[in-house]
Amino acid sequence: MATYFITGSSRGLGLALAGLLAAEPNVSKVFASARSESAGIKKLVSQSSGRVEFIPLDVTSQESAKAAASQVEKSLNGKGLDVLVNNAGLMPFLFDSIDKMTDLESTFTINVTGVHYTTSALLPLLKKGTQKKVINLSSTVGSIGMAQAYTILPVPAYKVAKAALNMLTVQYAQSFAAEDFTIVAVSPGWVKTDLGGEGADLTVEQASNALLDVVLRISTQDNGTFLNVKVPGWEHNEGANRYNGQCLPW
Amino acid sequence: MATYFITGSSRGLGLALAGLLAAEPNVSKVFASARSESAGIKKLVSQSSGRVEFIPLDVTSQESAKAAASQVEKSLNGKGLDVLVNNAGLMPFLFDSIDKMTDLESTFTINVTGVHYTTSALLPLLKKGTQKKVINLSSTVGSIGMAQAYTILPVPAYKVAKAALNMLTVQYAQSFAAEDFTIVAVSPGWVKTDLGGEGADLTVEQASNALLDVVLRISTQDNGTFLNVKVPGWEHNEGANRYNGQCLPW
Ligand SMILES: NC(=O)c1ccc[n+]([C@@H]2O[C@H](COP(=O)([O-])OP(=O)(O)OC[C@H]3O[C@@H](n4cnc5c(N)ncnc54)[C@H](OP(=O)(O)O)[C@@H]3O)[C@@H](O)[C@H]2O)c1
Ligand SMILES: NC(=O)c1ccc[n+]([C@@H]2O[C@H](COP(=O)([O-])OP(=O)(O)OC[C@H]3O[C@@H](n4cnc5c(N)ncnc54)[C@H](OP(=O)(O)O)[C@@H]3O)[C@@H](O)[C@H]2O)c1
Repeated sequence: MATYFITGSSRGLGLALAGLLAAEPNVSKVFASARSESAGIKKLVSQSSGRVEFIPLDVTSQESAKAAASQVEKSLNGKGLDVLVNNAGLMPFLFDSIDKMTDLESTFTINVTGVHYTTSALLPLLKKGTQKKVINLSSTVGSIGMAQAYTILPVPAYKVAKAALNMLTVQYAQSFAAEDFTIVAVSPGWVKTDLGGEGADLTVEQASNALLDVVLRISTQDNGTFLNVKVPGWEHNEGANRYNGQCLPW
Repeated sequence: MATYFITGSSRGLGLALAGLLAAEPNVSKVFASARSESAGIKKLVSQSSGRVEFIPLDVTSQESAKAAASQVEKSLNGKGLDVLVNNAGLMPFLFDSIDKMTDLESTFTINVTGVHYTTSALLPLLKKGTQKKVINLSSTVGSIGMAQAYTILPVPAYKVAKAALNMLTVQYAQSFAAEDFTIVAVSPGWVKTDLGGEGADLTVEQASNALLDVVLRISTQDNGTFLNVKVPGWEHNEGANRYNGQCLPW
């Protein structure tokens, strides 16, 4: 029976994934963390017969990450944490020329340092777990190799942050490969959330199911890779909206 | 007659490049910037018959970048700046497990935000220049595609920062392509500087000459690329110490 921790579970993909995991037969506990307990989390917790627990976590604060880890440790009562999904993220738009960008560092903090704080705080519990999986939500928008395709998308700080997150993911993967960790970056596709917007390719249901599939199927041989989700009907597209479950270019 | 601005000119590659540029026939001015005027810069300035000018610049401060740009503007007296070399950088070692890393953000600030501050402050002058070149000193250590080869090099924050710098470079390149800018990331090779250490492949003379070659030869068709230096005798090696002047993997 596996235990999961998800960041940014208040809404969007994080909330949807928490709901799917809570309904999985082999899952004993889902720690749904967020800056505050949203209506979505409250509903999930109340319907989960104790399988979903809300944990307060602002990923930009190392203090908050440590407090979250303490609470999880208490709740697990000597057991380990099996899987961490670093899902919290923010994509600010820049409606000006790149030289006017003022959010390079704050965007790095939430998308990259937040993953470092959360992963490092939960690492002792993950080492005690049986699955040792860390899934970092990245984006094809953070693929430098695919940058040409996203020229017109004005989110430079986010692109820089997700490219940096990919390298952080590889650094963590290398560091804990010998302890049988599986640490990957995953692109969930372009999804109709607050972040992705109405015009996106995938519904939250499609993307969260595809993400669940990645979370469940990855193993040590995937360690340090950058994975695309696989979505029925979207495998054979050309370009940025092909969702075929394969590795993506850095 | 071209004008150049270099960051981190106190020592290492920055100082050597400033010296080489000052000796080039088609160069009218080299702005050698650094946090403080080192003995090396003093010597260069005194021997340059006014062609080298020291500019105080701490790249981690936007105020400092703006003040440097004002001083350059005054000195150029209505003319533009042709070439900017963002060379300042810092590579802190981590003698502990990656979860203990405490310098992720400070390393990002000097290697990435510093480039953003400097480039944005000098952009109005670069737009008035005739060459419109920006060269960002990156590293193969920041190539996610080559990460396997550097597994044992314990500089995770620097690896993350240079990967981020590569994406920032591409974002700037895309933003100013239509104005005929050439904005590239360059890896100078592994060089015997304070940063590279005694055991490095190349002397400062070899690497700075190879870097000069890149600075002089790049043109708009290189915009947005990640270039390796070309060093005689090192073109045909296998792996990380091949210096063949070609594009590097992201
Ligand atoms: N949607 C897409 O098309 C798409 C594409 C590629 C990658 N992604 C990635 O997928 C992940 C989830 O995105 P989404 O589409 O579900 O976005 P979303 O609907 O905007 O949700 C973002 C989540 O991150 C949380 N968050 C933001 N700042 C936080 C902080 N400091 N501490 C803790 N949580 C914080 C938000 O919490 P609050 O409610 O408290 O703000 C929210 O729960 C992100 O990493 C995103 O970059 C999304
Ligand atoms: N050496 C290599 O093997 C190698 C390999 C790949 C890439 N690189 C890159 O090449 C560039 C030059 O490296 P190097 O080998 O010449 O290193 P170095 O000898 O250590 O020199 C670094 C320079 O950066 C300056 N600097 C540091 N922090 C600064 C700040 N906040 N503001 C302004 N300047 C600052 C230093 O100035 P102070 O004297 O004031 O400290 C110094 O001038 C770096 O970007 C480095 O990452 C080097």
